[in-house]
Amino acid sequence: MANYKIINGTILTCLEKGLKTEEKTVFVRDGRISFQPFSEDEDFEVVDARRKLIMPGLINMHTHSYMTMMRNYADDVPFTDWLFNRVMPVEDNLPVEAAYWTSLLGCLEMITTGTTCFVDMHMYHRQAALAARDAGMRAYIGRGLVGEDLYGDGYSRYQQAMEEKEEFASDRLNFLLSPHAIYTCSEKLLVQIGEAAKKDGFLKQIHLSESMTEIEDCYKAHGKSPVAYLKDIGFLDADTILAHCVQMQEGDLDIIRNCGATIVTNVASNAKLGNGIAPLVDMREAGINVCVGTDGAASNNTLNMFREMGLLSLMHKAHTRDCLAIPSDYIVQMATCHAGKALKDKNIGSIHEGARADLVFVDLDSPSLFPNNNIISSLCYSANGSEVDSVMINGSFVMKNRDLLTIDKERVFFEVSKIVEANLIH
Amino acid sequence: MANYKIINGTILTCLEKGLKTEEKTVFVRDGRISFQPFSEDEDFEVVDARRKLIMPGLINMHTHSYMTMMRNYADDVPFTDWLFNRVMPVEDNLPVEAAYWTSLLGCLEMITTGTTCFVDMHMYHRQAALAARDAGMRAYIGRGLVGEDLYGDGYSRYQQAMEEKEEFASDRLNFLLSPHAIYTCSEKLLVQIGEAAKKDGFLKQIHLSESMTEIEDCYKAHGKSPVAYLKDIGFLDADTILAHCVQMQEGDLDIIRNCGATIVTNVASNAKLGNGIAPLVDMREAGINVCVGTDGAASNNTLNMFREMGLLSLMHKAHTRDCLAIPSDYIVQMATCHAGKALKDKNIGSIHEGARADLVFVDLDSPSLFPNNNIISSLCYSANGSEVDSVMINGSFVMKNRDLLTIDKERVFFEVSKIVEANLIH
Repeated sequence: MANYKIINGTILTCLEKGLKTEEKTVFVRDGRISFQPFSEDEDFEVVDARRKLIMPGLINMHTHSYMTMMRNYADDVPFTDWLFNRVMPVEDNLPVEAAYWTSLLGCLEMITTGTTCFVDMHMYHRQAALAARDAGMRAYIGRGLVGEDLYGDGYSRYQQAMEEKEEFASDRLNFLLSPHAIYTCSEKLLVQIGEAAKKDGFLKQIHLSESMTEIEDCYKAHGKSPVAYLKDIGFLDADTILAHCVQMQEGDLDIIRNCGATIVTNVASNAKLGNGIAPLVDMREAGINVCVGTDGAASNNTLNMFREMGLLSLMHKAHTRDCLAIPSDYIVQMATCHAGKALKDKNIGSIHEGARADLVFVDLDSPSLFPNNNIISSLCYSANGSEVDSVMINGSFVMKNRDLLTIDKERVFFEVSKIVEANLIH
Repeated sequence: MANYKIINGTILTCLEKGLKTEEKTVFVRDGRISFQPFSEDEDFEVVDARRKLIMPGLINMHTHSYMTMMRNYADDVPFTDWLFNRVMPVEDNLPVEAAYWTSLLGCLEMITTGTTCFVDMHMYHRQAALAARDAGMRAYIGRGLVGEDLYGDGYSRYQQAMEEKEEFASDRLNFLLSPHAIYTCSEKLLVQIGEAAKKDGFLKQIHLSESMTEIEDCYKAHGKSPVAYLKDIGFLDADTILAHCVQMQEGDLDIIRNCGATIVTNVASNAKLGNGIAPLVDMREAGINVCVGTDGAASNNTLNMFREMGLLSLMHKAHTRDCLAIPSDYIVQMATCHAGKALKDKNIGSIHEGARADLVFVDLDSPSLFPNNNIISSLCYSANGSEVDSVMINGSFVMKNRDLLTIDKERVFFEVSKIVEANLIH
């Protein structure tokens, strides 16, 4: 692993009170950030970052990477048609090996648009892990769990998660437990997962309160909101990551704040599937840790976190008719240091002494960012993702001057084309 | 002017009932599109458009190009602070020549993101015309008119518009009359502009019903909505382009439809300034011709029409909680053929025999668009603007394989840097 001395750049620093930019030399030693110069007997390469912003890699906190094959496959159709007639028949028949290539396509898009780490949930967890490993990305991967009983049908999957945690053990790959949703998991299964996560040190992620149907069904079954239900069965805690939370009921945000759980908002997906707008302004005011996810490409239809950041702020400003709602500084923190907090790793999502060197180099001479009147603001309101020039993950470049170093784009496109041809219903 | 035979591409065709893609050879003869092969005695160059979508150039129907210098200059501040303390002091002191370079920066961003034509309004109309001329862009330019009387203080400006219409007369440059707003123009001035436009064959554009303050003030002054007021003074007709129309009152949409006026929606700007969300679903249902504008970079903060298209559909799907609201097919038409209709030129915004050759070549092997499950859909839901590979305007390439052919980027950045340094308040 090479060491780097990165000169002439502007770095984005996460402080307690917000973000700031400063001109500073960054040293990357053994995969970690340092501001201590190299000694005479250390080898290093010099990287000239003139006219570049060096920012923490973006963290996509909720996606389904293999679904990138379904980008624009089922747009502008009703949700039930989308799920039952378009997505599920493909999932049911997809050869498991195919998911390696389709996940790698997701990694490719994420890297080119400045994402260095993602949290993934689906049934092809092993292929997603292999794709992240080969792409050189940081990932937190969970097998979507459904059914009645973790120690019945589900146990093999839990054991597998444990074994994979061992097998893939590395600086970059992590596993978490991902029950799919309250309407696809029995109460018993959810309780078992909660207990297992505590015992074996897993984070857990679940889809929650995404649609009004889910809310209505939960009230019918349990007489309370999905959030209250999860709290009452002991599932909610500070190691819990809740994806969506669009339909928040009275008291829900207080419960989430008091448990210390994290919310991942997925603004494009929620919009695209007609689920509405999550109450981000209220979440922020409640002091909840909120992060950003793209969801899968089948419901977005891109894994571009820059597009998600701009959309987030504008969506909430429009919805509240308040031009001060959700400022850019907060948005950028949601996509970086908030995610580090949620993943219980203060060394990702931030540039500081000892942090993992997950760095994105943004070209400040991009037409979309020029003139650079306010760099932080431009990341939210002006950038489209194409300004990303280079990406380093865990101290290694995975893209440099827009050349992909870990992924063979032509090969991935070739393999995905074959998979699409064989599996999608056109 | 060279002729071109464009082979191996996929073209986007605008039909009565929507859009379709087809593989077809395009001939560009004397700046116009043809499907008739060249004869033996015609000279032409062959362009290989393999794996490219050839689509009509996007038309940005409302912007203030010189304001690109103020990108991210005043974000996340209250509207009055934005206007009176940040934007207006700069406008008051900007040397008129500076606006040439800052408008050219706007042209640069528009070309790189696939816009071939724009409608511009501000006080630096001459500099905008020169910038559009030099950039090789198609433009409709209007001097923002304010005050009491067209034939008093304003007459020199109207005369100037007439003279410039002569001076710049070309296939690409057009002028229109642009009264700023009902709250900055007297009734007399608006009536005079309406009459002059009819007499001398100008289109006209005005900011209308943008904020609630404008609505409230109009009811106080005239006892009716801004739309009803403009109708009653005879200003509204089929040659009228209404920018914004966010705050539509009872009956307003019927009036606009019956007059045959066009609405330009500016979703990012309306969101960013806290004005809310225009009722696009109702506008569409009413059968009104609706187009897309970015507004200026000071309130957006980009002139990227692809970003605007994605935002538009998602914003309205979220707001209405309807996943079928404003489909991608309609969005792409808003940004192309609807604009041709508004500008009374059926030969722009569409690829057909005899149309102006304003063509955008989109790289279908971009990570954001692959796999190409639905190309039209991907233009709205997946593209970020960086997929634009080449741009032809009026039969001449202004960008080819991502190289700008009419604009010297380094020179523009150098000049704009000096202007920003001297004029913005940091």
